[in-house]
Amino acid sequence: MNQLEDEIKAAIRDVPDFPKPGIIFKDITPILLQPQLVKKISKHLAEQMQHFNPTAVAAIESRGFFFGVTLAAELGVPFIPVRKKGKLPYKTISYSYALEYGTAEIEMHEDALSSGERVIVHDDLLATGGTAAAASELIQQLGASVCAFSFLVNLSFLNGEETLKKYSPNIVNLVNY
Amino acid sequence: MNQLEDEIKAAIRDVPDFPKPGIIFKDITPILLQPQLVKKISKHLAEQMQHFNPTAVAAIESRGFFFGVTLAAELGVPFIPVRKKGKLPYKTISYSYALEYGTAEIEMHEDALSSGERVIVHDDLLATGGTAAAASELIQQLGASVCAFSFLVNLSFLNGEETLKKYSPNIVNLVNY
Repeated sequence: MNQLEDEIKAAIRDVPDFPKPGIIFKDITPILLQPQLVKKISKHLAEQMQHFNPTAVAAIESRGFFFGVTLAAELGVPFIPVRKKGKLPYKTISYSYALEYGTAEIEMHEDALSSGERVIVHDDLLATGGTAAAASELIQQLGASVCAFSFLVNLSFLNGEETLKKYSPNIVNLVNY
Repeated sequence: MNQLEDEIKAAIRDVPDFPKPGIIFKDITPILLQPQLVKKISKHLAEQMQHFNPTAVAAIESRGFFFGVTLAAELGVPFIPVRKKGKLPYKTISYSYALEYGTAEIEMHEDALSSGERVIVHDDLLATGGTAAAASELIQQLGASVCAFSFLVNLSFLNGEETLKKYSPNIVNLVNY
């Protein structure tokens, strides 16, 4: 385990029984209280990501926005919010996907990407990969492709990478559990 | 009107009838597609804000996160997400406030701020000021104070500044309508 992973793990807070009984939630908000750590994470993610020649960062509402915005700023590329249904004001494309119970639907503005763009999908945490896969579908609908995935945390026991590898084999995370 | 205001206004998109008929929504997401403009906005906001000696930036979910995060990074201070009820995993304080129809409730982690801190409240857009006022109440509940408000856009015909000035007289925005 490298030093940055140590620092991030020390900052992440385990919250038992959130959002429901039996789940231990990895709370990343204490990281945001440490500006030097935020800077280090943003720079480190950007260094790893620039090898994939991204033209944009698409990040998933809401926690994905925190480091999605700083990652896009470090890379000097456009930032694209992927949001829950009904939140984006302009014309959107949408994708529905299955959750443990029921379905969810996410959206992207239809003019957010041009055909041929190489997009990083960013979120704070990779669990089963369902939401990141849905974001990838939206990117492909616009004729662009996923050049890499970027996460702070990977709950690797949930095998999210299996779900995502068909969109891109480049799956980067800073912390593993 | 200065050059930055011109650039921002040129990027903002008017979306009629969102979120409901009769409202013209100011869509800031096209700004995020211009990395140089994002950088300029973040630096300009930070320059204006540093005079108020902030110790933290609190930003309102979700659109407030975009420039709240970059503002905190520029200033080198902690970033605190203010979120809708039920979204923050740890122990929270909450505040309910009136909307046009019904009420809304926002939350902050109870350990996000220490007593005596000087906090910037940031959001993308100032309308009536109800949500920024509610965020200010949370900040005061924790024994801290609002040193300034930061917005990209001020819909000044809605007089939000009147609602906010009791928390801080320092209300900065980059674009007026």
